[in-house]
Amino acid sequence: MGSRERVVFIGAGHVATHLAQAMARKGFDIEQVYSRTSDSAESLAKLIEAEAVTSLDCVKTDADLYVISLRDNALLELLPQIVANKKESLIVHTSGSIPLALLDKYEGRFGVVYPMQTFSKNKEVDLSKVHLFIEANNAQDERYLLDRFSTLSQEVHRANSEQRQKLHLAAVFVCNFTNHMYTLAADLLDQYDLPFEAMHTLIKETTEKIALLTPQEAQTGPAVRQDTDVINRHLAMLACRPDTQDIYRKISNSIIKYKSK
Amino acid sequence: MGSRERVVFIGAGHVATHLAQAMARKGFDIEQVYSRTSDSAESLAKLIEAEAVTSLDCVKTDADLYVISLRDNALLELLPQIVANKKESLIVHTSGSIPLALLDKYEGRFGVVYPMQTFSKNKEVDLSKVHLFIEANNAQDERYLLDRFSTLSQEVHRANSEQRQKLHLAAVFVCNFTNHMYTLAADLLDQYDLPFEAMHTLIKETTEKIALLTPQEAQTGPAVRQDTDVINRHLAMLACRPDTQDIYRKISNSIIKYKSK
Repeated sequence: MGSRERVVFIGAGHVATHLAQAMARKGFDIEQVYSRTSDSAESLAKLIEAEAVTSLDCVKTDADLYVISLRDNALLELLPQIVANKKESLIVHTSGSIPLALLDKYEGRFGVVYPMQTFSKNKEVDLSKVHLFIEANNAQDERYLLDRFSTLSQEVHRANSEQRQKLHLAAVFVCNFTNHMYTLAADLLDQYDLPFEAMHTLIKETTEKIALLTPQEAQTGPAVRQDTDVINRHLAMLACRPDTQDIYRKISNSIIKYKSK
Repeated sequence: MGSRERVVFIGAGHVATHLAQAMARKGFDIEQVYSRTSDSAESLAKLIEAEAVTSLDCVKTDADLYVISLRDNALLELLPQIVANKKESLIVHTSGSIPLALLDKYEGRFGVVYPMQTFSKNKEVDLSKVHLFIEANNAQDERYLLDRFSTLSQEVHRANSEQRQKLHLAAVFVCNFTNHMYTLAADLLDQYDLPFEAMHTLIKETTEKIALLTPQEAQTGPAVRQDTDVINRHLAMLACRPDTQDIYRKISNSIIKYKSK
């Protein structure tokens, strides 16, 4: 493969949008962007001067590299159509949870580039610090992916499908669930007419501690102190929100359990 | 009160240790530190050149300011003894959850200085950015606390007992529960022989997003995409950890519920 690989993106969501732009900046020639909805296809295609297509029939079959960045169930559904007539090309997906074996049952060159990061609209991400986990069904493509994506990120690692699934599960806890704790807090404060901004310093410090202490060393609060007076008062305050109350109780019990480990 | 207030600390835990040092740097004259255990009393007392005492009988009664920084149940138990013979002094506590009314039933001058922060051993905290929430049972002491603690922090606010309890509850979610998500992830990765350090970039980005987006806008992951394939695979991976599996399920359901709000 030359230095101007011809690339097609299958999918135009948050991951695709961030990854495609970073790849375009590093000399990948992204020719097409497929998305089921023309708005998505076109808004990404415009950013990287590619062609937008909304039917897989219009996707060219002679690109060097295909990057599939779809929801897992869409990927599995469309996979037979995506891989058709592309035996010569390298086809990678970006999912944390789909094993390479699911692609590998087709004939062809397959791989994975999993960026372990949270991508949202309206928030730039410096991809050079993002951990990219690479896998391929042949040594040559694996080496190519490791080398080539090292121009995008300083943190490019090999990970097999099982390791990637485990990293993804851990990422759901540290990122998605953490963010939902912010949602629950913001909703409570909103109900109380108090500003969520008051939490920013605390959120920042909670994160900074984790670079220096183990999570167990960093744990503070009523549960780890087994301060049942406070815990019970908090549960009472959440009486009208049984789901949130249940989450409070379950996490507090888990904190107490881990303390005695 | 002059500029060299004579202060006694009742308690020598993490909050006391960080707050007492910051106060000493700002000219408070901390004369005594009480803790039930002499090790704790002495290690804080040494840092700020104070006397360590392990009996409340040895606490002087003529200080200008007493700062109570104990676990809530210890505070409530010791309170009658702490307030005895100190009607002339200002007595404040640092708890997020104890209403001022619980002190105010005694005769005297009472207040609260609640630092909304997570304090651990071996991690310095820049108190100048920490939100301090102030309350007092008389206008003069409230003004004094607001003014005097503004020399420690740029973020000194008035908050009544109800507001403080609500802030504390929200803080448990954004700090203590978030940190427990790190513990659960670290434990999973440890079991899998994968390094928790791989999560640091993701943790950092999750936090940085919150300064720019609302928590709802920032939410990513399988639950908000309602990607039940991934959710079910993750639940299966957690089959041997029923408590963690339950937390995964409850938070995912809550994310889905909030999305449709």
